[in-house]
Amino acid sequence: MTEMTETAAGWLSPEELSLMRERLPILYVDAVPVRADENGVVTHVGLLLRIGADGTVSRALVSGRVLYGERVRDALLRHLEKDLGPVALPRVPLSPQPFTIAEYFPTPGVTPYHDPRQHAVSLAYIVPVAGDCAPRQDALDLEWFTPEEAASPMVQQEMTGGQGTLLKQALAYVGRIV
Amino acid sequence: MTEMTETAAGWLSPEELSLMRERLPILYVDAVPVRADENGVVTHVGLLLRIGADGTVSRALVSGRVLYGERVRDALLRHLEKDLGPVALPRVPLSPQPFTIAEYFPTPGVTPYHDPRQHAVSLAYIVPVAGDCAPRQDALDLEWFTPEEAASPMVQQEMTGGQGTLLKQALAYVGRIV
Amino acid sequence: MTEMTETAAGWLSPEELSLMRERLPILYVDAVPVRADENGVVTHVGLLLRIGADGTVSRALVSGRVLYGERVRDALLRHLEKDLGPVALPRVPLSPQPFTIAEYFPTPGVTPYHDPRQHAVSLAYIVPVAGDCAPRQDALDLEWFTPEEAASPMVQQEMTGGQGTLLKQALAYVGRIV
Amino acid sequence: MTEMTETAAGWLSPEELSLMRERLPILYVDAVPVRADENGVVTHVGLLLRIGADGTVSRALVSGRVLYGERVRDALLRHLEKDLGPVALPRVPLSPQPFTIAEYFPTPGVTPYHDPRQHAVSLAYIVPVAGDCAPRQDALDLEWFTPEEAASPMVQQEMTGGQGTLLKQALAYVGRIV
Repeated sequence: MTEMTETAAGWLSPEELSLMRERLPILYVDAVPVRADENGVVTHVGLLLRIGADGTVSRALVSGRVLYGERVRDALLRHLEKDLGPVALPRVPLSPQPFTIAEYFPTPGVTPYHDPRQHAVSLAYIVPVAGDCAPRQDALDLEWFTPEEAASPMVQQEMTGGQGTLLKQALAYVGRIV
Repeated sequence: MTEMTETAAGWLSPEELSLMRERLPILYVDAVPVRADENGVVTHVGLLLRIGADGTVSRALVSGRVLYGERVRDALLRHLEKDLGPVALPRVPLSPQPFTIAEYFPTPGVTPYHDPRQHAVSLAYIVPVAGDCAPRQDALDLEWFTPEEAASPMVQQEMTGGQGTLLKQALAYVGRIV
Repeated sequence: MTEMTETAAGWLSPEELSLMRERLPILYVDAVPVRADENGVVTHVGLLLRIGADGTVSRALVSGRVLYGERVRDALLRHLEKDLGPVALPRVPLSPQPFTIAEYFPTPGVTPYHDPRQHAVSLAYIVPVAGDCAPRQDALDLEWFTPEEAASPMVQQEMTGGQGTLLKQALAYVGRIV
Repeated sequence: MTEMTETAAGWLSPEELSLMRERLPILYVDAVPVRADENGVVTHVGLLLRIGADGTVSRALVSGRVLYGERVRDALLRHLEKDLGPVALPRVPLSPQPFTIAEYFPTPGVTPYHDPRQHAVSLAYIVPVAGDCAPRQDALDLEWFTPEEAASPMVQQEMTGGQGTLLKQALAYVGRIV
């Protein structure tokens, strides 16, 4: 999950956020960007490419915090626009029901999801994206994978914190498990 | 639910369909056409208007049979195109999971759903429609209602066979229950 | 939603919780306790009865905060035991997917849900309860209602903060909307 | 899927069923029997063991046809009792919403599911089973597997018609994907 750059904007000081991260579960959203054909069959999954300071390649879902006073669907749109650019044309789901929730714990092994910084509970949604994606911020690129590729060990091992598992759950939910 | 005009095309003779309707539950799809704003909030629900031989007004969801060898998502698209015209631009859900199922029994009262012709089990989906709708066949018009109007007694009493209940379940599912 | 008595236990001081409530959405769970027959048909819904200092009667779902380091299913069980007693035998859902989420805002009207104290986002689950319920803490009683009674204006107007709406969504989800 | 022994009871002659199987999609239910701990975490999945005339071992979900005039939840219970015996104590889901649908086509490759006899559309449910299971009919045994074992290639290759995929979808839905 991306670092909270919005804290820099003054909504919450980094010190306050640090404190709260040790006291409360933090509410997140995870979005799985997908391309679908005209019959609604998912053909591709989009993953953000990041390269760490040490050159490590990692791939990630669109993910981020829900702010105070912000609706979940607005948080989804904000993070999608932040990560995919202004013309990605994401279609936020009509139902607020997530396809699953991911409970990221600071201690590995409690659940399949892990975030060393905090206890985060994420509402996970599948979001069809119809437009052009131009990743911004710290992501280098957005790459599209077929369901088979996305579930392959090669891609799975480039995903961290259990997001590979979450991606496979999304594929199962749309009937594209392999 | 509309009469099976496709039987005229020879896929199944009317006699065969009649026989089977007394022996097997028939698989249907129900689609609730909706308009949503850019944040994914459902703003309107579309209902087909029909006028009976006796002048009775009734309103209906898009509904119809799944054919032998046809995928559920293809049946959904076929009925949406048949009832809303070729430029309605429906977006079939990515997940095959229906938001509920409706079990229409020939005997009223077994479930909230009733179809005097048959025992039909319908997979129900909410389908955003972005384009222009031009009802064809036996429907006179497609009218858009706000969630409040759609759940009102006036509209509810114009729906038959329990489709008013199914419509309220759809509104509940998208968080627009009133 | 009930006041956070667990803060008294020292997990979070009342001052800290107050501060955080102004800065972050707080993660909650809502549980709708139900009785079902042997075929899985929901026959009754359980509501907590509370009497305010001014004598006002109100009815509520089982509801409460998810603590730091606590899994959602453990939070559900803790609040169910706190509100229904130790021999209620609740059956926590196998899937972590809530049937919906309820976004309680401090400002009324943003969503159907309202909590003057905070911005809370609640994961809502339906929980069959097989044993005997003995409400504890600040609840006077747990009363069982048929789906028809639960959706009636009389019961609905005794529910606050939008929980009446959430209850109707639960009834719709189990096919008992009326 | 098991052969329709109920046809022998006269509800539908084998000839009639054969005819209909070439003309209509046949409505099925698939049940994934599971054991869960007291917190609702799925610990085991139950699979029926069958040995073919040629000695081939295969493993299967509980599966069968919905009869004319039968509610889906009654069909689920009937097949569970038929396959697991009278004291299995299955808990049929409260919501009629299946976790997914499986479209079995007579032609392989249209979907992940395949049934050479027919086009069947199956509503799939996860069913916790609390009692003792004593398989009857043509099943030799019911064996319990951990989620890891159930998703392993060894077990997956003993499942036919795409039921291995359906099983993995069930595991993903309850958060036990591996």
